[in-house]
Amino acid sequence: MATNRRLLLVRRPHGEPVPDDFRLVEEAVPAPPRNGFVIRNHYASLDPAQRGWMDDAPSYMPPIALGSAVRATTVGIVHTSDNPDFRPGQWVLGMNALEDYSPMTPGGFTMAIDVSRVASPSHFLSSMGAVGLTAYFGLLEVAKPEANETLVVSGAAGAVGSVVGQIGKIMGCRVIGIAGGAAKCRRLIKDYGFDAAIDYKGKSVPELAAEIALAAPAGADIVFENVGGNVMDAELLNLARKARIVLCGLISEYNSPDKIGIRNLWQVLAREAVLHGYLVTDFVPRFAEAGTVMARWMAEGKLRMDEDIQVGLENAYPAFMRLFSGANTGKLILKIA
Amino acid sequence: MATNRRLLLVRRPHGEPVPDDFRLVEEAVPAPPRNGFVIRNHYASLDPAQRGWMDDAPSYMPPIALGSAVRATTVGIVHTSDNPDFRPGQWVLGMNALEDYSPMTPGGFTMAIDVSRVASPSHFLSSMGAVGLTAYFGLLEVAKPEANETLVVSGAAGAVGSVVGQIGKIMGCRVIGIAGGAAKCRRLIKDYGFDAAIDYKGKSVPELAAEIALAAPAGADIVFENVGGNVMDAELLNLARKARIVLCGLISEYNSPDKIGIRNLWQVLAREAVLHGYLVTDFVPRFAEAGTVMARWMAEGKLRMDEDIQVGLENAYPAFMRLFSGANTGKLILKIA
Repeated sequence: MATNRRLLLVRRPHGEPVPDDFRLVEEAVPAPPRNGFVIRNHYASLDPAQRGWMDDAPSYMPPIALGSAVRATTVGIVHTSDNPDFRPGQWVLGMNALEDYSPMTPGGFTMAIDVSRVASPSHFLSSMGAVGLTAYFGLLEVAKPEANETLVVSGAAGAVGSVVGQIGKIMGCRVIGIAGGAAKCRRLIKDYGFDAAIDYKGKSVPELAAEIALAAPAGADIVFENVGGNVMDAELLNLARKARIVLCGLISEYNSPDKIGIRNLWQVLAREAVLHGYLVTDFVPRFAEAGTVMARWMAEGKLRMDEDIQVGLENAYPAFMRLFSGANTGKLILKIA
Repeated sequence: MATNRRLLLVRRPHGEPVPDDFRLVEEAVPAPPRNGFVIRNHYASLDPAQRGWMDDAPSYMPPIALGSAVRATTVGIVHTSDNPDFRPGQWVLGMNALEDYSPMTPGGFTMAIDVSRVASPSHFLSSMGAVGLTAYFGLLEVAKPEANETLVVSGAAGAVGSVVGQIGKIMGCRVIGIAGGAAKCRRLIKDYGFDAAIDYKGKSVPELAAEIALAAPAGADIVFENVGGNVMDAELLNLARKARIVLCGLISEYNSPDKIGIRNLWQVLAREAVLHGYLVTDFVPRFAEAGTVMARWMAEGKLRMDEDIQVGLENAYPAFMRLFSGANTGKLILKIA
């Protein structure tokens, strides 16, 4: 009889998560909830946001309860069902957890997906999923880029950042990416077509600010922020007047119990910039429409999204930590089955 | 023969300004520039922004050059003129300096003012001037308050904050002020009609955040930020979803060479808040229109603006420091003549 392996959060991480914060358990496969169903998870998205959900702090979602499985977006196949709209064999996307089997109900983020038109169902966690569309709506609907504007993207080699930069190029922007290490910077230019790439590693805020100034002498019209900390402080010293900042993530801070904070907020005032706290949730009803545009750009060779697929629920912890060590290249996904 | 006393900036302050950063000199009264004029300054505005201009850092205005007089908004009377539109005896407002006599040219912030309709010409540096109108446009045009919204104002007993809170009440908001000390908090309630007042002194960020939460259980729809630092971090823990933050000043940081920074920026993302870096300059063409509204509210007893008038150019340094010690009550103005 099949069992359900589940990765539980058993202790709130203090700073960087350690293996003892989690426990892999085996339980019985659940029965479908009333009017719901159970899916066999095949792929799970590993995202920086999950680190935030592990803290007991006010956020846009409740913290992951201690003793419950680590929340994750997954795609899988309906295994058993009490709902005629979700028959066994149907592929489904939803907000579930790092586990073999997830009970689900319709509504919310739950949606049936057609995997026949994609090379891999995992694409619904990358280019066709919330991550690719976070880039799409954050840049196009929040920052609203115009041709010839200068766009600075941090975390530029990451899943969101690499797509933001490529869409920026499609829109005619001059795109400057900030990433960690020479290899990632080479990929920004070679694989993603950025105009300039800056390696933040080992640089002070003034040093990094000076490099950004060289690449963007008239300042950034748009900053797409995924990192925070010193990287953001250096960007803030290079704002064009009335710059738009899309605050999409702060990955440098998620594991810091003593956050260093943003010291150059004065620049937001002095440049009359606007900083938008951004979640993609408002745009979920437009995902299908945007997914079509993304698919077209990919077919035309204008957009690529790399996936870093790690294998096995038993490897979830080291796979997740690749997000923070900077080891991952492209969208990090855990293959469960 | 008259001489021109001038307060020069002779050294950039490191942190809190000290007397040796300045030197009071006596020079000859200047001749009017071509097509310009010279005014005898009567009142000078002392503002937190001047501290920023003393630093050699990128900002919305160039730093005050070492060896030149400290930039200040002043009102005075035309003394000598080479311009028929500004005859001797005419009152004028402009961006000048802490000095007895200032050479001026038309344009920019220079404007002739009609002091016959105000109790004191100093009002053009407070309620009728940039400070009162900074509150007016920042709240009404940037935050756009609606009735029954919750407005949290920091630096609430200050020149800008006290007006923001009063206009918030006129607009039907629930207004919570944060100020330093019991006496100021009493004034917020008694003199300015705030709904609640919170004393930030001696409180940690969690303690202050808990007090704000008690006063604003559903969170702040609008934060009007004049202070920054720990006060702002506590406010950020109390944002309503899609809150608007008007970033008008960061007085807690102006004298800090090692800024503590904002650690709770994550909340801006999690609450999908928008933070607007705000300068009043865009609204200068609408000053006359807004001044009329402000004057009407004052005549109707709905709005008051206190002035803290210190006397004598020779007292400019201790007068200026009242801004940072929290000693000033109302708009701080230096009477020069």
